[in-house]
Amino acid sequence: MSTYFDPPITAVRRAVTVALEEDLNPLGDLTAALLDPEATTEARIDCREAGRLAGSLCATEAFVQIDPRIEVEWLRHDGDELSPGDDVAYVRGRLAPILTAERTALNFLGHLSGIATLTAAYVTAARRGGDAHVWDTRKTTPGLRSLEKAAVRAGGGRNHRGNLSDWMLLKDNHITGIGISEAVARCLDLWPARTVHVECDRLDQMVEAIEAGATAVLLDNMTPAEVRACVEVADELAGAGRPCLLEVSGGVTLDTIGEYAGTGVHQISTGKITNSAPVLDLGLDIGSPVG
Amino acid sequence: MSTYFDPPITAVRRAVTVALEEDLNPLGDLTAALLDPEATTEARIDCREAGRLAGSLCATEAFVQIDPRIEVEWLRHDGDELSPGDDVAYVRGRLAPILTAERTALNFLGHLSGIATLTAAYVTAARRGGDAHVWDTRKTTPGLRSLEKAAVRAGGGRNHRGNLSDWMLLKDNHITGIGISEAVARCLDLWPARTVHVECDRLDQMVEAIEAGATAVLLDNMTPAEVRACVEVADELAGAGRPCLLEVSGGVTLDTIGEYAGTGVHQISTGKITNSAPVLDLGLDIGSPVG
Amino acid sequence: MSTYFDPPITAVRRAVTVALEEDLNPLGDLTAALLDPEATTEARIDCREAGRLAGSLCATEAFVQIDPRIEVEWLRHDGDELSPGDDVAYVRGRLAPILTAERTALNFLGHLSGIATLTAAYVTAARRGGDAHVWDTRKTTPGLRSLEKAAVRAGGGRNHRGNLSDWMLLKDNHITGIGISEAVARCLDLWPARTVHVECDRLDQMVEAIEAGATAVLLDNMTPAEVRACVEVADELAGAGRPCLLEVSGGVTLDTIGEYAGTGVHQISTGKITNSAPVLDLGLDIGSPVG
Amino acid sequence: MSTYFDPPITAVRRAVTVALEEDLNPLGDLTAALLDPEATTEARIDCREAGRLAGSLCATEAFVQIDPRIEVEWLRHDGDELSPGDDVAYVRGRLAPILTAERTALNFLGHLSGIATLTAAYVTAARRGGDAHVWDTRKTTPGLRSLEKAAVRAGGGRNHRGNLSDWMLLKDNHITGIGISEAVARCLDLWPARTVHVECDRLDQMVEAIEAGATAVLLDNMTPAEVRACVEVADELAGAGRPCLLEVSGGVTLDTIGEYAGTGVHQISTGKITNSAPVLDLGLDIGSPVG
Amino acid sequence: MSTYFDPPITAVRRAVTVALEEDLNPLGDLTAALLDPEATTEARIDCREAGRLAGSLCATEAFVQIDPRIEVEWLRHDGDELSPGDDVAYVRGRLAPILTAERTALNFLGHLSGIATLTAAYVTAARRGGDAHVWDTRKTTPGLRSLEKAAVRAGGGRNHRGNLSDWMLLKDNHITGIGISEAVARCLDLWPARTVHVECDRLDQMVEAIEAGATAVLLDNMTPAEVRACVEVADELAGAGRPCLLEVSGGVTLDTIGEYAGTGVHQISTGKITNSAPVLDLGLDIGSPVG
Amino acid sequence: MSTYFDPPITAVRRAVTVALEEDLNPLGDLTAALLDPEATTEARIDCREAGRLAGSLCATEAFVQIDPRIEVEWLRHDGDELSPGDDVAYVRGRLAPILTAERTALNFLGHLSGIATLTAAYVTAARRGGDAHVWDTRKTTPGLRSLEKAAVRAGGGRNHRGNLSDWMLLKDNHITGIGISEAVARCLDLWPARTVHVECDRLDQMVEAIEAGATAVLLDNMTPAEVRACVEVADELAGAGRPCLLEVSGGVTLDTIGEYAGTGVHQISTGKITNSAPVLDLGLDIGSPVG
Repeated sequence: MSTYFDPPITAVRRAVTVALEEDLNPLGDLTAALLDPEATTEARIDCREAGRLAGSLCATEAFVQIDPRIEVEWLRHDGDELSPGDDVAYVRGRLAPILTAERTALNFLGHLSGIATLTAAYVTAARRGGDAHVWDTRKTTPGLRSLEKAAVRAGGGRNHRGNLSDWMLLKDNHITGIGISEAVARCLDLWPARTVHVECDRLDQMVEAIEAGATAVLLDNMTPAEVRACVEVADELAGAGRPCLLEVSGGVTLDTIGEYAGTGVHQISTGKITNSAPVLDLGLDIGSPVG
Repeated sequence: MSTYFDPPITAVRRAVTVALEEDLNPLGDLTAALLDPEATTEARIDCREAGRLAGSLCATEAFVQIDPRIEVEWLRHDGDELSPGDDVAYVRGRLAPILTAERTALNFLGHLSGIATLTAAYVTAARRGGDAHVWDTRKTTPGLRSLEKAAVRAGGGRNHRGNLSDWMLLKDNHITGIGISEAVARCLDLWPARTVHVECDRLDQMVEAIEAGATAVLLDNMTPAEVRACVEVADELAGAGRPCLLEVSGGVTLDTIGEYAGTGVHQISTGKITNSAPVLDLGLDIGSPVG
Repeated sequence: MSTYFDPPITAVRRAVTVALEEDLNPLGDLTAALLDPEATTEARIDCREAGRLAGSLCATEAFVQIDPRIEVEWLRHDGDELSPGDDVAYVRGRLAPILTAERTALNFLGHLSGIATLTAAYVTAARRGGDAHVWDTRKTTPGLRSLEKAAVRAGGGRNHRGNLSDWMLLKDNHITGIGISEAVARCLDLWPARTVHVECDRLDQMVEAIEAGATAVLLDNMTPAEVRACVEVADELAGAGRPCLLEVSGGVTLDTIGEYAGTGVHQISTGKITNSAPVLDLGLDIGSPVG
Repeated sequence: MSTYFDPPITAVRRAVTVALEEDLNPLGDLTAALLDPEATTEARIDCREAGRLAGSLCATEAFVQIDPRIEVEWLRHDGDELSPGDDVAYVRGRLAPILTAERTALNFLGHLSGIATLTAAYVTAARRGGDAHVWDTRKTTPGLRSLEKAAVRAGGGRNHRGNLSDWMLLKDNHITGIGISEAVARCLDLWPARTVHVECDRLDQMVEAIEAGATAVLLDNMTPAEVRACVEVADELAGAGRPCLLEVSGGVTLDTIGEYAGTGVHQISTGKITNSAPVLDLGLDIGSPVG
Repeated sequence: MSTYFDPPITAVRRAVTVALEEDLNPLGDLTAALLDPEATTEARIDCREAGRLAGSLCATEAFVQIDPRIEVEWLRHDGDELSPGDDVAYVRGRLAPILTAERTALNFLGHLSGIATLTAAYVTAARRGGDAHVWDTRKTTPGLRSLEKAAVRAGGGRNHRGNLSDWMLLKDNHITGIGISEAVARCLDLWPARTVHVECDRLDQMVEAIEAGATAVLLDNMTPAEVRACVEVADELAGAGRPCLLEVSGGVTLDTIGEYAGTGVHQISTGKITNSAPVLDLGLDIGSPVG
Repeated sequence: MSTYFDPPITAVRRAVTVALEEDLNPLGDLTAALLDPEATTEARIDCREAGRLAGSLCATEAFVQIDPRIEVEWLRHDGDELSPGDDVAYVRGRLAPILTAERTALNFLGHLSGIATLTAAYVTAARRGGDAHVWDTRKTTPGLRSLEKAAVRAGGGRNHRGNLSDWMLLKDNHITGIGISEAVARCLDLWPARTVHVECDRLDQMVEAIEAGATAVLLDNMTPAEVRACVEVADELAGAGRPCLLEVSGGVTLDTIGEYAGTGVHQISTGKITNSAPVLDLGLDIGSPVG
């Protein structure tokens, strides 16, 4: 079963409106006056480097908000792998509005496909070491959380917390004064149907968290060896009826993720896939205008 | 004189509101119930790798929108160089709202400082070759145009067109059928106080554009040698009373920008500084809570 | 002639967008990935208790904002009486978006039909005693004023002031210092084409208000006997060329409204129909998915 | 530890702005011209029936958005029990803006306190029977989800899913074709750190769900006796290492909740506390204006 | 008593935010980089022609939204008459943000004062002929209804309907088929506390409207002589217990309004005061920057 | 080639939504209940005085936002000259929503056509004297910048700066302390592809600006004779390789613009065309309703 599903269409609409406004206000597309307003074209979105597609809903929305009569036909879909030279979509309609919307559509497509592509790279690298899933974080570009989390899904990654309202991740400051056991107990009492995660720097903290009933433990900035030691202890606790998800976070790179995955942890999270993904190079080739 | 000036405060406010809403709705910060609501702290924003600061207005706004009584004191300012370990700001106020706003503040700060940092790297690399300015493009993250263009300024770069309403950049599709000379002439007539830029793939196109009176020519995807040939011809035309800005675009990397700058062009533009900048690693260290 | 007319479509659109966003952000409908995205269905909105329909525009809008290809066919219309088991509408289209929009559509429909239903109960009870109309108030749910006032119309009630900009209702604080006569005179001078209402606790205040030219008097928190005494005096004043609308407000329940209506007043207003109406139980039955 | 924490301040601000606009546009408060603009007052918010306070942030925000110089001092706090006649807050400032904001402030306060009050009644009734928590649902008033969920917390209830993005609740349509076991397995794989809930109509479904690893089972529309039978079987499964939360939903009233709580289930959810709560009667008493 | 009161502050805030955004996005005030960011000044808003002040709230809001530390001290107030050379306000704070907000502040001030000034001219001209009030219309600039209606009040005019939700104005299309009497009767039944206005082209229509109980009659495009004939008949009907407001509309100019006022009508309405008022010339004089 | 092109459709949509909301909230069009909701009509927009059309996109949008099934067929287009009695458009659909949207559609059409008409008058008057273009300014109605600048284009005028982000216009305050030469040099360095304009009161300032490399000089509040003297000097400087645009601003009226144009300047700007244009009288004639 695919892990991909589209972002909320309401988020797509709002983000596209804002993006078009920032590219057009106050005067609009100044070069529009040079073009025959009735000339039509068939343009082609193509991919210029290997990657993974995401953001097609946003690109369609950008063209259609500028001119509802533009038609976009997608040959490839979010989550598909792309090779250099691949045709991704056809855009048919009047030339002038297609040119006006082009950059906005490509900005969404390139940014979100870039995230999907980097995510897919992490997923592939992790699979070389083990079965751990790649998790995103809340380290997303402000205003684009919904879209970027969908792009992570398109890349084969999984979504960690959507936001602060999702579940609890206890860090130092939440634990200071009351201790891990008490903090976890309070959370389980307050929010029994949400999972409680605890950020741990040391094995003894992990043990305390698991014994307190934490659903997941985030092993923060540990070496693979330290993680492996934690996994062994956690496996014993699981065998004793205390199952717990283990997440690795901090210091994860494309080079190291395989080794971390090999430790047997369940999830490896990294902000890099959303906040440091280079754009994927997609372009729009305009056909000869007609009429 | 500094090239830096702040983005519009209205853009800062709107972007921060959207970002906080996406991190908090619908329930808010679930862990808030674990904290003493009256405990206060002094937190410190510090930098964990070398870079360039940008986004301080956004970070302050994130804290203050959550709690107007939080005070943020900046030790460093947008455009300043940062070294690993540098203290960047103090954040003083109640612990709970500081934790709630932390990630949003850091997402802005890291993203925008990442852009400033990469821009500064391109600027430095370009200066090794010559005097060309580094220009951004319209290849920005949707919804963050104003903020990212300010981050480019913080990195020592210059801003190309703000958007489609700014000036004319004539590409293939605007020229097809009427030719460069006619297209430039129409633009100069329509918009005499705006500059007219022409994208050229070949030297003869550049010559036609300059003779038609273009303010700037974008030399697209040329090798340094091709650019150098264009510069020589353009210098002659300038000497003959036809001055024109020369911009290089396409295929510019940190490795090649110095060579391009050495050709004598005036501007080198790259979308990478805005759409492919990795985040700059900044963090928030919470002091011991008080009370 | 029907007293019903639809709320502004602009208000419908805005309220539905907000409601969908709060139900979907940031990740969207998580269960969407379990469904065949191409499966279609015909769903049926039915009523599970006796009541009065309102909110159909909002329900349609919720489905269509999620997927413009969903078709909603209404068998019953706003203002219609409903019996348990009645089919109210058919919803045809793809299963996944229908499920995503279901709760938002039903929340509008149930809330607004609840208001229409309670209003209709008050209208019926009032008619047992006399001809008084049932009026709503400004005691509406924040953000839903337009929609709730339309639901009151669907229930056979009439709309009192839409908001503070509509007409003047003089209360204690407006009268203190200048007296009823002077306050009414000023209002009539300032806003000759708007009606002036005066809230009165005692018969002598009513007399002063009517003699000053008030269009309507709100008899506040009086017993039916006190109201009846006021009606008699007001009838005399009307006979002497001083007509005035009499409104009863305060302490009105389903049990007492008939007696109040029997006093001969013209309007009986109650905030309960908008701020205390229980939801009407409407549901969506999904047919067997196709394809 | 209190289960209460405030709704996001961003949600408070946005809801209040919308509410003020709907009460004031286009002309504003027409009676404002009758008042001395410089007269000040101290007003008092008091409670006129027993209940539970919620919505104080919204009420403060309503006054302050109209006039930032108004000061609101709360004597009681969200979550506090109120008795008839209790003073709840003082509102100090200019009389005219206090009157302008009064109804909006009270609409929030009455609506949200009504929800807190009804929630508290369900909580109290449930406690008579057992330890089950009272859970809200997604059956909230459109546009007020964040605020109503906070009001439920103020009433001692717990928050179920915030929205569709929170966790999975599998219903008939998600299960059709693949069966409970497969559906749960897919969810656990896709979203390991989120809980998976399954709606069940029969004991055998519950057993399948628990054995498949569901975190929670929603027992839908069962009698207390049926629920009790489910609890017994679930207890056995828990003893065998298959713990699962049991939630009762459907047909829950103030009269029956105690009996359901007595069955030993963990949560009892009802939409009534948010979609059918009558307003709590709170009022604003204006003191003598000064100056 | 003054007829003036401020527009809703919520409308002021929203309009100013939109106006600043359209003047600043995407890059902000480009000349800002030329100024010493810490230099302060005291600027003076002065009036360069005779007129009437309106819009001071908007001007203050424009400065304060750009920089909350700017202080604006108004020497004159909305509704005050201004002479050429009059000082209207002092604006104190940092020079750069004052210059950034200057044009937006002046655009509001000039536009709204222009409306107040033209309104005052019509009021003065009308008073030469009689006691008729000058009424505005719904012919306002899109998006500025609230502010322009307040400006009319500042000019001594009165506000007609705020919008379509305010009261009924029956025109040809509402009457076709059912006739004036029936249409008025329906309105009075539906909306007893709102006034019913009827647009009439002929005296016999006016008589029918008055006898049907219309609150006001709009005499459309009549000559002063025709109006006078209507007034005489209406006076007789008023004497017979059928009072009715008479409004003249259509063909009203500064030259003719006195004659219309002399006919004895109660209101004279004209769209010109809101949709054709030239700007009032107000400027900002910057003092010598300090520091 | 036409100088006209449409404003951004995103600006059209947003402005129309705001305008409809201000005319309809909270209750909607009260007279709607008098009309047969199914009756249809063909209405005609006609022009009642000579002028120039602008705003057709806004008018269409107003009708379509109220009812997407309304069809608007334009016989004339933005930029066309209109004579009294000209049919401008047909509006076909249901009568009730056409009446509801009528005033909003006409307010846009009248306001924007008024601007186009006054602009055309200035353009015609200027052409009598010379070849100077008529330029608008930033003195536009708050919130309508995009639409008014398009209306200026429809009137044959040219657009000056769209906003503060467009290019630099140096005034006294930017020059104080550093002098014209230095200020221009800084601008040229900072923003090489934007034009630098300098506001000058005297010939010697103009000379300094031109010699410093300014792209354009704004001759502020000069007499035609003074302007002519500047043109002569500027022509000499142009002949010496220092071309510069000359703009006249201040004191320009329909009577004087021809004389200013005769001086040989390139642009003449005036705020009057946007901030003081009387409405163009356009109306909607409803045909006989059908059905």
